[in-house]
Amino acid sequence: MSHPTALARTPEPPYYAVVFTSLRTVGDHGYDAMAARMVELGSSYEGFLGIESARGEDGMGVTVSYWRDEAAIFAWKRDPEHQQAQRGGSEVWYADYAVRVAKVERAYGKF
Amino acid sequence: MSHPTALARTPEPPYYAVVFTSLRTVGDHGYDAMAARMVELGSSYEGFLGIESARGEDGMGVTVSYWRDEAAIFAWKRDPEHQQAQRGGSEVWYADYAVRVAKVERAYGKF
Repeated sequence: MSHPTALARTPEPPYYAVVFTSLRTVGDHGYDAMAARMVELGSSYEGFLGIESARGEDGMGVTVSYWRDEAAIFAWKRDPEHQQAQRGGSEVWYADYAVRVAKVERAYGKF
Repeated sequence: MSHPTALARTPEPPYYAVVFTSLRTVGDHGYDAMAARMVELGSSYEGFLGIESARGEDGMGVTVSYWRDEAAIFAWKRDPEHQQAQRGGSEVWYADYAVRVAKVERAYGKF
């Protein structure tokens, strides 16, 4: 598993969400190891608040990472190992992807 | 399938995202039919812009629906059939869930 099977325990809004949606190409080509490493590395960044991720058997994946502010998002985007992964994503792993940066204004849950 | 295997083609920001993350209980109990119906019904609402969804074999799911504005989100939340599904979610289908409402400020993708 490249992500925890649990919801993120984020603080009270406001904070930021990066919604990354993608459609995988066929075959692993190092994807699983990269994905696990990116979760590990991203989680270590200042301002990281949590991550939630799922990928279905049809290849569609949705990963949402939560951040204290935009500065934290920019710092993570510029990480050299992450930039290498971004290039691999464009060239090898993803048939399509989209990134949306959004400010979380309110949140509620089961508990 | 209860959702399309494709990315949503949303307009230029700003617009809103509703990030719904959930952990399924074991067994279907009418879940798949409800989920497909909710996609169909929600998509018919004024201000609906698109939906992206994935669920892994571990039961974790992330669904992001996109909306023109908060008024559209509130109208959909109050839909009677949707409210019945929300009750079923709390009582039967989800071991845990969270809803986050966020304003998309910027977006980019592969193409």
